[in-house]
Amino acid sequence: MSDHIRLYIPGPIEVSPSSFEAMSTPMIGHRGKEFQELYGGMQERLQTLFETKQPVFLSTSSAWGIMEGSLRNLVAKKVLCCGNGAFSDKWVDVAQRCGKQAEGLMFEWGQPVDPEAVREKLNSGEFDAVTLVHNETSTGVTSPLAEIAAVVREFEDVMLIVDTVSSFSAVPTPVDALGIDVMLTGSQKALALPPGLALFTVSDAAFARAETLNDRGYYFDFLEFKKNQEKNMTPSTPCIHTINGLSAKLDDIFNEGLGNRYARHERLNGLVADWVTNNGFEFFAPEGFRSKSLTCIKNNREIDVPRFSQLIRKNHSIAINGGYGKIKGLTFRVSNMGNETDETMGEVLAAMDDSLAKL
Amino acid sequence: MSDHIRLYIPGPIEVSPSSFEAMSTPMIGHRGKEFQELYGGMQERLQTLFETKQPVFLSTSSAWGIMEGSLRNLVAKKVLCCGNGAFSDKWVDVAQRCGKQAEGLMFEWGQPVDPEAVREKLNSGEFDAVTLVHNETSTGVTSPLAEIAAVVREFEDVMLIVDTVSSFSAVPTPVDALGIDVMLTGSQKALALPPGLALFTVSDAAFARAETLNDRGYYFDFLEFKKNQEKNMTPSTPCIHTINGLSAKLDDIFNEGLGNRYARHERLNGLVADWVTNNGFEFFAPEGFRSKSLTCIKNNREIDVPRFSQLIRKNHSIAINGGYGKIKGLTFRVSNMGNETDETMGEVLAAMDDSLAKL
Repeated sequence: MSDHIRLYIPGPIEVSPSSFEAMSTPMIGHRGKEFQELYGGMQERLQTLFETKQPVFLSTSSAWGIMEGSLRNLVAKKVLCCGNGAFSDKWVDVAQRCGKQAEGLMFEWGQPVDPEAVREKLNSGEFDAVTLVHNETSTGVTSPLAEIAAVVREFEDVMLIVDTVSSFSAVPTPVDALGIDVMLTGSQKALALPPGLALFTVSDAAFARAETLNDRGYYFDFLEFKKNQEKNMTPSTPCIHTINGLSAKLDDIFNEGLGNRYARHERLNGLVADWVTNNGFEFFAPEGFRSKSLTCIKNNREIDVPRFSQLIRKNHSIAINGGYGKIKGLTFRVSNMGNETDETMGEVLAAMDDSLAKL
Repeated sequence: MSDHIRLYIPGPIEVSPSSFEAMSTPMIGHRGKEFQELYGGMQERLQTLFETKQPVFLSTSSAWGIMEGSLRNLVAKKVLCCGNGAFSDKWVDVAQRCGKQAEGLMFEWGQPVDPEAVREKLNSGEFDAVTLVHNETSTGVTSPLAEIAAVVREFEDVMLIVDTVSSFSAVPTPVDALGIDVMLTGSQKALALPPGLALFTVSDAAFARAETLNDRGYYFDFLEFKKNQEKNMTPSTPCIHTINGLSAKLDDIFNEGLGNRYARHERLNGLVADWVTNNGFEFFAPEGFRSKSLTCIKNNREIDVPRFSQLIRKNHSIAINGGYGKIKGLTFRVSNMGNETDETMGEVLAAMDDSLAKL
């Protein structure tokens, strides 16, 4: 048994000793050559991971900061916020709090975003931006990113903002091929680092849009990120320790190989899926839209989810999640993202077996 | 000699092995009891350190995020930005980028902010907020916070926003006694942690002002911080590792005792001051306004500052700073904040002696 509670919640997840060691590298000045080498030295690998020729920016914030920044930098007319779970639903409210016109295109929790519905809305000509959460962490649903991106690309002036917080680096998310204007993610999901660092890309069209907006602010101003990145710097003092962790994590990722990494996530996700079906449970997501990084399990057997989680925690020092918001108890969630292996996921599933038997 | 370059630049500074160890604590979920205990368990000590009864908020950002947040949350009419160095000067521009009316009250670099000049401006009735950088890191000048705060308090509807980034916890900054509406600081200065965590307080008057403003956004919305803090949580996913570091740092601070801590900073600052006068240098700040956490030394001897810094770095693995922005080379800066001792500061000054002799 571990000396601490191992996290298989949908983030933050387990951070490896080698990541903590990398983050314990002595500090360096953030306006000097050493930082420029650190950030500059990561750029090409970050671009490979994002599948983009655009620069990859590092923001000292969690992902919501860049979600808000995207609205302030890109929305001049009105934003269409695709909502199908706790995190995507919230975007409408955040947009309005930024003083933006916003409308929700809402789907039932558990359903993916429907590209046709997006097209229908955009046909009105009212919108100049769309927000999408690729992988809804609250429901374990992956929306059809390529199809939705293709629809948005039909509308020249509409910017596509995609949150890949819980899918990034677990499945491919090719920014340039899909024509995503802003793609953003966070450090505490599949990258298996602590929270506090957001990563994002911005298309040339999005930079051009930003230039026309006057209340972008400073901290999340995409043009400031661009200007500073050209010198391998960040607009504000960056979280150097977490960036050191990211640098070491990129070594791990490219040592494993991107193809192997995606295949491992798919395989481990399959182990969880097998557990679900073998134990008479169902998936909250429809077939074809199930997240590869976390599984949201429908509690069709009506087990006592809090007690189930508690047994797993108490007897096995493992944390799973008992459902989010309005589907708490009606679902439970198990993450397979990050550094996990057949062995560690096997331990999690064995702990679930054992606890299910004890209910 | 150290195995790395030890930082005596004005931040980031040296982070101790024990801080790195604390930051290597395994992750916990940020929406559960463990995080609530972590954050809740720090609250009283944070309030003691800020000398306030208001809650102390933790923002996953560097301090500029909260500087910008202060403007978005508090400025309805127009903000007066006191400028006397690189960081304070920048505030006017940032305010305008947030779509706010802003005017700079500018002083020469090296001079403190003059309370009388602030009063004169506020008498116009145009302003509803004032920004002040207590300790201008670029020039080593401490402005008379108590006097300026007293002036601002004469104007009932004017909010006082104070950046104590490089003075906090090195000198007392009593929030409630001075009537500061927003006081903000960062983790990478005297707290001797890596960057990426900002700490701040908000007065009741400032909360009331925030309620009247409609484009506060979400990420830096002070009312969101308040609502979440009541449950010992943060609005967005917090940088748990850095917060673990802060928790351990608070242990250190209160073990040493606040009085001892302030006295130590003053004493070590005095050692640097002795070096300055003993070596025929002058201070960039006027007498009575010299920072206690860092010394900005006027290069009146016209030494080759880049070479001087380089010798210190190369022969002693110590980094000092060769001046900021337009006073680069005309000044150089040495920090004495954080965990430093008579012994470590003695090593820095000996390295400076040795390098001065070799010029």
